[in-house]
Amino acid sequence: MAELRINPVTGERVILSPRRAARPADLARPGDAQGGGRGLEAGCPFCPGNEAETPLEVMVRAPEGRLPDQPGWLLRVVPNLYPALEPGKRTGDGTASREPGLLQSSPVAGFHEVIIHSPDHHAGLAELDAQGVARVMEAYRDRVLAHRREPGIGYVQVILNHGGGSGASLSHSHSQVFALPFVPSRVELEMRRARAWRRRGGGCLFCELIEAERRGERLVLDEGGFIAFCAFAPRFPFETWLLPRAHASRFEGSDDAGLEALGEALRHLLGSVFRGLGDPPYNLYLHTSPCYAKASHPYYHWHFELLPRLAEWGGFEMASDTVICTVPPEEAAGLLRSRL
Amino acid sequence: MAELRINPVTGERVILSPRRAARPADLARPGDAQGGGRGLEAGCPFCPGNEAETPLEVMVRAPEGRLPDQPGWLLRVVPNLYPALEPGKRTGDGTASREPGLLQSSPVAGFHEVIIHSPDHHAGLAELDAQGVARVMEAYRDRVLAHRREPGIGYVQVILNHGGGSGASLSHSHSQVFALPFVPSRVELEMRRARAWRRRGGGCLFCELIEAERRGERLVLDEGGFIAFCAFAPRFPFETWLLPRAHASRFEGSDDAGLEALGEALRHLLGSVFRGLGDPPYNLYLHTSPCYAKASHPYYHWHFELLPRLAEWGGFEMASDTVICTVPPEEAAGLLRSRL
Repeated sequence: MAELRINPVTGERVILSPRRAARPADLARPGDAQGGGRGLEAGCPFCPGNEAETPLEVMVRAPEGRLPDQPGWLLRVVPNLYPALEPGKRTGDGTASREPGLLQSSPVAGFHEVIIHSPDHHAGLAELDAQGVARVMEAYRDRVLAHRREPGIGYVQVILNHGGGSGASLSHSHSQVFALPFVPSRVELEMRRARAWRRRGGGCLFCELIEAERRGERLVLDEGGFIAFCAFAPRFPFETWLLPRAHASRFEGSDDAGLEALGEALRHLLGSVFRGLGDPPYNLYLHTSPCYAKASHPYYHWHFELLPRLAEWGGFEMASDTVICTVPPEEAAGLLRSRL
Repeated sequence: MAELRINPVTGERVILSPRRAARPADLARPGDAQGGGRGLEAGCPFCPGNEAETPLEVMVRAPEGRLPDQPGWLLRVVPNLYPALEPGKRTGDGTASREPGLLQSSPVAGFHEVIIHSPDHHAGLAELDAQGVARVMEAYRDRVLAHRREPGIGYVQVILNHGGGSGASLSHSHSQVFALPFVPSRVELEMRRARAWRRRGGGCLFCELIEAERRGERLVLDEGGFIAFCAFAPRFPFETWLLPRAHASRFEGSDDAGLEALGEALRHLLGSVFRGLGDPPYNLYLHTSPCYAKASHPYYHWHFELLPRLAEWGGFEMASDTVICTVPPEEAAGLLRSRL
């Protein structure tokens, strides 16, 4: 089982997961997960025909009559073969570890799955058709809903790594789902700030942000009930946030029509990044309300954050947790708008 | 002048410094700052003979009689030609920006310097002789002392990026000094936790950590009054901390003898990383007490953190501020000890 350790100086959580190091690419240098060309790839465990190379599927989108773990699927969800977290007996939520004590660690259980976006080895999310992207969004929702029901899960983190330099170790387009026994610090930080904003007399911090950005120079798109703008204080050049215009605390409360509209907006956004920046490596991740929060509450607003990984963090960023960004988001948004 | 922006959702600081983007390598992919071979390099602004390509030196170590900004130096400090921060009228410490307000930004002034470690283009810090490393440590101390005296400086951050993938954009071995009008969040977090530790009845958090690690399996070296161990909850595989054994709040209070011993310990540590991991890219940074703290106080303990950059952060790390680490620090320390 993986181990949760707390940095004795900063209090930050680290998941120590040595089993993942069995993965050959793990200590390799960036740049080994590039696409190019079309179709399938013989050695790829995510390509049709290679279903036996992954654990058994936990969810699938396929025409009726197709047999489990056989070709013919449109989207497939399987446990990660090299999981950062594995199911196990209920483990702590990390709260206990924040009590005094110098070197704190505990076993940590959870789920780690892979959503294989499509049978096409080389198509990134930006290159799928509208239906294909909507299918991925539905898988996000359905896996978040499935894991929230598990005992001891505090948060379900969905992420997508695209391209060499993004952390991706397999190039066949896929997302990852991490069901965690704790709420990650970054999400908790956002929740805390959003609650404080409301307490100070504001409404939903994100709704106010949408209102401030929707006619401004950082706007990238505003369509079908979704808005995307370049982040005011970005961690990476071209960082862009995508949110529903109407207040909604939980992504996983979305209905099919909403996910279809979301898929279309996301597809347009990713397309502008693909064309404007030449298919750069990127991370895309979902922030939704933690499991402990009510289904609907007035302060947190789910959203995606998209981080192109064209710049790298150096010692200054690592030492200070402060980023030096060289591209004004106002210019980044102009470029992305022009490539929609 | 650069602009300080506050992320409206997380409160994090970002320094927006578009002028640095003039630098051609800035949006280039990692991997372009590799060493190899010996001697000087014609196009390198840090090599002897090319002194005119940098701003005028602000500090130098050279034999007597050598003319300013001419060859003959052993170590040279110059302002960064593409500064993230530039001197200017006194700017805020970022505190004001933490008051309510959705999109907050302010001009930000400071200093950004380069310490050129030696005339040798290809020698990393690990490859300098003992005197050479001690000279670099003295330059760290002297620049921190010089900048602390400037009005409006809250913290002086010294960092070293080594090799492609570390954030380095020039391969000639050098460090960077950032004199900031605020205390970086990561340093403030460490200070806050160290104060809380003491309030709860502990002594110095770091002194207790040294006591816990000095006979343990994460120990790398213990010599000349300095100790290095692999971090219990590392952000990167092989992350190692180096601290003085005796309590000391400020690095810049070190005397020449102390810096000589430090240089020797650091040289041994970097040598084991060089040999054990094949000259990997790394970040090395100093954490010392902020300018607001008394010269000597009982809770903060200066130290270096060394982060080899063999693994990369992906979407999970970016989404959650939680790291998945695949190499147990106990194994990392064993490898480093064996290559001392």
